[in-house]
Amino acid sequence: KTQKEPLEELSAWGKSSGPNSWSRVSCPCCISSQIEPLVLIQLSENVQPITKQWIMSVISAPVKTGGSQLLVHPGEDMKGDMIVVAAPRCTLLRVTEDLGLCKTYQDGNMTAFSYEDKDNFCNIEDMQRFLTLAERQFIVKHELDSMRALEDQRIPGVPAPKGKLKARESILQKLEKAGVIRNITPLHDQKKLTALGKQWYSQKNLWGQPLDGIQAYFGGTIAYYFSFLDFYTLSLFPPAILGLFITFFLPSINFSSENTTASESTQAKEDDDQPSVSSYMVQAVFSMLWSTVFMELWKRRSAALSYRWGTFNLAEQFQEPRPGFHGEIGTNPVTGRLEPLFPDWKRRVRIGLVSVPVVGAFLGLVVMGMAGFYFFERLVSGWHKSYDSYFTVALLYLPSVAHIVYTNVLGNVYRNVALQLTEAENHREESSFDYHHTTKVLVFTFFNNFAVLFHITFFKEDLALLRKRLSSLLIVTQVVNQFTEVVVPFLVDRFMSTSERNLKEDDPEVDHLQAQGNLPAFPGLFAEYIELLVQFGYLSLFSCVYPLTAPLLLLNNFTEIRTDAYKLCKLFNKPFSAPVANMGVWQVAFEVLSFISVMSNCWLLLLSPRVKDLTQDAGLSSGQVLVFAVIVEHALIAAKMILAFIIPDEPDWVRIKREQIEFHSMQALKKQRVKRIQVDDTLPLKDKL
Amino acid sequence: KTQKEPLEELSAWGKSSGPNSWSRVSCPCCISSQIEPLVLIQLSENVQPITKQWIMSVISAPVKTGGSQLLVHPGEDMKGDMIVVAAPRCTLLRVTEDLGLCKTYQDGNMTAFSYEDKDNFCNIEDMQRFLTLAERQFIVKHELDSMRALEDQRIPGVPAPKGKLKARESILQKLEKAGVIRNITPLHDQKKLTALGKQWYSQKNLWGQPLDGIQAYFGGTIAYYFSFLDFYTLSLFPPAILGLFITFFLPSINFSSENTTASESTQAKEDDDQPSVSSYMVQAVFSMLWSTVFMELWKRRSAALSYRWGTFNLAEQFQEPRPGFHGEIGTNPVTGRLEPLFPDWKRRVRIGLVSVPVVGAFLGLVVMGMAGFYFFERLVSGWHKSYDSYFTVALLYLPSVAHIVYTNVLGNVYRNVALQLTEAENHREESSFDYHHTTKVLVFTFFNNFAVLFHITFFKEDLALLRKRLSSLLIVTQVVNQFTEVVVPFLVDRFMSTSERNLKEDDPEVDHLQAQGNLPAFPGLFAEYIELLVQFGYLSLFSCVYPLTAPLLLLNNFTEIRTDAYKLCKLFNKPFSAPVANMGVWQVAFEVLSFISVMSNCWLLLLSPRVKDLTQDAGLSSGQVLVFAVIVEHALIAAKMILAFIIPDEPDWVRIKREQIEFHSMQALKKQRVKRIQVDDTLPLKDKL
Repeated sequence: KTQKEPLEELSAWGKSSGPNSWSRVSCPCCISSQIEPLVLIQLSENVQPITKQWIMSVISAPVKTGGSQLLVHPGEDMKGDMIVVAAPRCTLLRVTEDLGLCKTYQDGNMTAFSYEDKDNFCNIEDMQRFLTLAERQFIVKHELDSMRALEDQRIPGVPAPKGKLKARESILQKLEKAGVIRNITPLHDQKKLTALGKQWYSQKNLWGQPLDGIQAYFGGTIAYYFSFLDFYTLSLFPPAILGLFITFFLPSINFSSENTTASESTQAKEDDDQPSVSSYMVQAVFSMLWSTVFMELWKRRSAALSYRWGTFNLAEQFQEPRPGFHGEIGTNPVTGRLEPLFPDWKRRVRIGLVSVPVVGAFLGLVVMGMAGFYFFERLVSGWHKSYDSYFTVALLYLPSVAHIVYTNVLGNVYRNVALQLTEAENHREESSFDYHHTTKVLVFTFFNNFAVLFHITFFKEDLALLRKRLSSLLIVTQVVNQFTEVVVPFLVDRFMSTSERNLKEDDPEVDHLQAQGNLPAFPGLFAEYIELLVQFGYLSLFSCVYPLTAPLLLLNNFTEIRTDAYKLCKLFNKPFSAPVANMGVWQVAFEVLSFISVMSNCWLLLLSPRVKDLTQDAGLSSGQVLVFAVIVEHALIAAKMILAFIIPDEPDWVRIKREQIEFHSMQALKKQRVKRIQVDDTLPLKDKL
Repeated sequence: KTQKEPLEELSAWGKSSGPNSWSRVSCPCCISSQIEPLVLIQLSENVQPITKQWIMSVISAPVKTGGSQLLVHPGEDMKGDMIVVAAPRCTLLRVTEDLGLCKTYQDGNMTAFSYEDKDNFCNIEDMQRFLTLAERQFIVKHELDSMRALEDQRIPGVPAPKGKLKARESILQKLEKAGVIRNITPLHDQKKLTALGKQWYSQKNLWGQPLDGIQAYFGGTIAYYFSFLDFYTLSLFPPAILGLFITFFLPSINFSSENTTASESTQAKEDDDQPSVSSYMVQAVFSMLWSTVFMELWKRRSAALSYRWGTFNLAEQFQEPRPGFHGEIGTNPVTGRLEPLFPDWKRRVRIGLVSVPVVGAFLGLVVMGMAGFYFFERLVSGWHKSYDSYFTVALLYLPSVAHIVYTNVLGNVYRNVALQLTEAENHREESSFDYHHTTKVLVFTFFNNFAVLFHITFFKEDLALLRKRLSSLLIVTQVVNQFTEVVVPFLVDRFMSTSERNLKEDDPEVDHLQAQGNLPAFPGLFAEYIELLVQFGYLSLFSCVYPLTAPLLLLNNFTEIRTDAYKLCKLFNKPFSAPVANMGVWQVAFEVLSFISVMSNCWLLLLSPRVKDLTQDAGLSSGQVLVFAVIVEHALIAAKMILAFIIPDEPDWVRIKREQIEFHSMQALKKQRVKRIQVDDTLPLKDKL
């Protein structure tokens, strides 16, 4: 469970002396015989030695002087374009407290780490066991990000316009913008990686993922993704079994009885490959309730994981703001630190009056594009019918081509707009920035994916087409995904990584480092999550027309887990991954989808030809059927809400731990009243009310 | 602002000695020359002296021995059926800390009171200034409520079945059930009451209420009601002015232009007293946005008030459970106290699977009753037309009578059912119990009030009838309310209170007390709030058909404030009123209503004959109009949500204070790690996950 690997390969680094050796920190507690290289900074190839020297000096400078109090090593290669960074014990512990990470206390509970109280925490003597590799690397990144110029100054060796640093400007951002720093990556630990890979994606291990190992090695966001994927795959079994059952067993049973009621034989023939009404109903109601139970149970699991991984108490609002945050410099009234301040209401106004309308307008453009596509298609096919020439045949392709081009251009424009809108919202916390940025991209991507299906369902009301489209989407997407995610990477791996493959164990460390830096950057989890979300959409929104969705998804997820793991371990640079307490916006997205699914499924049931026949036989007017459908829909939504209410969002033991902490904080505050920071005491209370 | 009344009338009490004197508390800090009588306990007339003696001894006993450590006085009357209770300083301070009340700290901030740190709080030397009268009285009530039998015992002087106390049973509840205690009321302070009344409802004071004074004298819940009423009345000005403008100015302008478009003169004549389309629209859109702005601003005001009144930090979940709470005795894992425990999931299951369906069934019964009424009315009027005899004339009244009887019986049954359901949910906190109980009654009452109006709007689609009904409801309700709330109480006051009126200032104190106990009990704020809510419903749901709603409501509220104040001060016993941080469930009810109003208003616009004409002229099918209406509805809901998002729920300065406390608690917890209570440490962490 804990990482107790011997650090032999590091000892060579730790012991080396001379000009090419580790910098020293002026801290008596941090004398250690071994130093673990954590992060690799790659400089541009034409960087001046004086600039490199300056960067190294800033990184190793104490926090008071604007540095980050880390250990740096100039690397040992010819080019001199890399800096290796490690962290002394005192910096690791200080940032652990700043981040609000919880660690095992002597009484066995996870407790917010406190530097003063450090001796009461378990494993405190061994940083490799106290913090996970991912945490140590994130701490280094966090400290590098928070380096700020104390006053206006120039970066040595960089020409004036690019090299001018203003007071409080983020040094790292400036260096990246100036092109001095190419890349910052956490370093792999090949032994651990091999061990993790064996447990994770080897053929022998068919079920279960080493989640704790993933969390330790890759960090919070990635561990959450794989935990969710794991849980989701497991949860797919009930709908998959039901789907298989309905597809292969029910039709034969129902047909004998259905044939007697539905007298029209032509209708019955057409329905040959369609599920019967009762299986429609069963499938729809089951999938609606299933999605709620699944999401609620995942929330509990997520809360349990966040306790287990010590991230349930993160207090990002009390940390330094993220590097991109700007505002007037002032004293933070809560923490008393000097930092940029930006009023919350301004942000809210920008979100509400700028971002939301702009995103809405882009969604409108998607709809207009689709409407235009259908309009021109009808127009062109009309021309083709009337004139029937080669020219009109060529014209037939025009609407599709134009639509694809339009969609792509729109998507690219939107991606830029979304980023700029989120930048303009000026979020203080990294997580809040991610949340708003992801939401924007997510809504658009989702809309793009489902607009056609919704159009078919609600406007064309053509279930047969929907079924065809859905099955082809599911199968084609799977084949394409498997190909791009397995075959291409495998080939790339074979073809690209020859340079690294030739390295032997006893080659100099620096060549290994060099090789790591040359891999492509990990593109992030957005694509992975959106794939899951779109699939979940197919399943919950339209599953009742195509019961094989769940079995196909199950199959897909089984391979997905392995290919994602392989990709992450072998084909990309190791990404930084922050400690997080949940999936963030994705959780919300899945929940919203599960509520939209009620409307969609009720509509699909209403449209199904069998239901239409049944209601016509029963002599109900379309108005009455609609009212009935609305009532059923509201009842189902109520049932979902009751289910969601009954299943608590966190297990009792997590709730108790949380309340204990709350209670003890209250008590502690009373007992030891901290001198409060005087806020706004120029204004008397009356004027504020 | 603070209460610095001389306590002359109390000194007589404090100094009296002999058997009929105040009990003493074994606490060195609580020696005081003056004791303020706070609460009056009225016993049944045939109570045994030994029982009275026992009750007094329990109340004055220390907390350790199951008492409440209060001061008691046997009263000085002949009948011996009263006990007067006062509170020593140490008890007041202890409970202030338990309740989590905030008081002004030496640095000027409101800070959770802590006994250990008491010398740093302002006014700590004078309980009359440190705690408000209402707070002191609530503390006494709180302590009386929390008296529990330490072991199985018998109440002296009460026969066996009623007088048996089980261990941990609430002594007060038992005594009330056994009929020994008739009544517990906080005592009025006539001088303060007169002063408050002068500021509050005298003719001179036309605007503004002494909210701080109300909070100090009557306490939190009542002060919140009057603050809301005040704020609501003020907020009614914009819609009232718009309503008056539309009614008296717009029609004349619009008619000239409307006549040219609407060619049918009969239609135009019919519409004579109806507002035009554009005023409809303006009124509807305005009232929808207004209701959101109003609620959001009220939330800010409410947050500011809760800071001002020191109730923003109440931690009810860490207090003792409410008296009616039952469960298996165990150690509370959070606070470590021995108390009954009841798993949260059981409560959730009971709410979700029992309470919600039962409430739903009762709402169904209301609908069925209405449907039955309409059905029988049609049936009976059909008979009347065919047979036309005296018998059928009499029969014509039958459906109405039957419906009224049915509604009343249903209402009474429901009230009991709601109470029992909430009891069965076994809420731990008083506020949570109130919340769920009020919600149940509220939903039913509201449904009962609006079912007929909704029926007229959505099924009959008869706007003329709706307008008539609405105006008559508004006017009749106002007249009836004014009558019952002003005239009747005034007469009662004249007629009933002769006994008290005859008392002179120099009559013995005990007669004044006796007189106070004889007033009827205050019926609670439910009726007051529901009146406001129903009026708000008229305004926001249907205002666009009757623009004079807002001016009429404004008129009503002006008198409402005064009659409610008069009623509270003069006509009822003073009620206990807990310190609260907001309006509780009523806030939610108003917000929900404001969202329902969007649907209702869109539907009303769709139904309005002018809009129908316009769409017909424009050649739109009913389907297209419906789609358009749905789009408008969603856009309005989105606009409301954006507005609600933009306006923060609490003023910045309150948010900063709250975050400061959070931050300092976190810091304090780290610095002084309290020995944690070991929970569940028999189970290893792995088994829980």
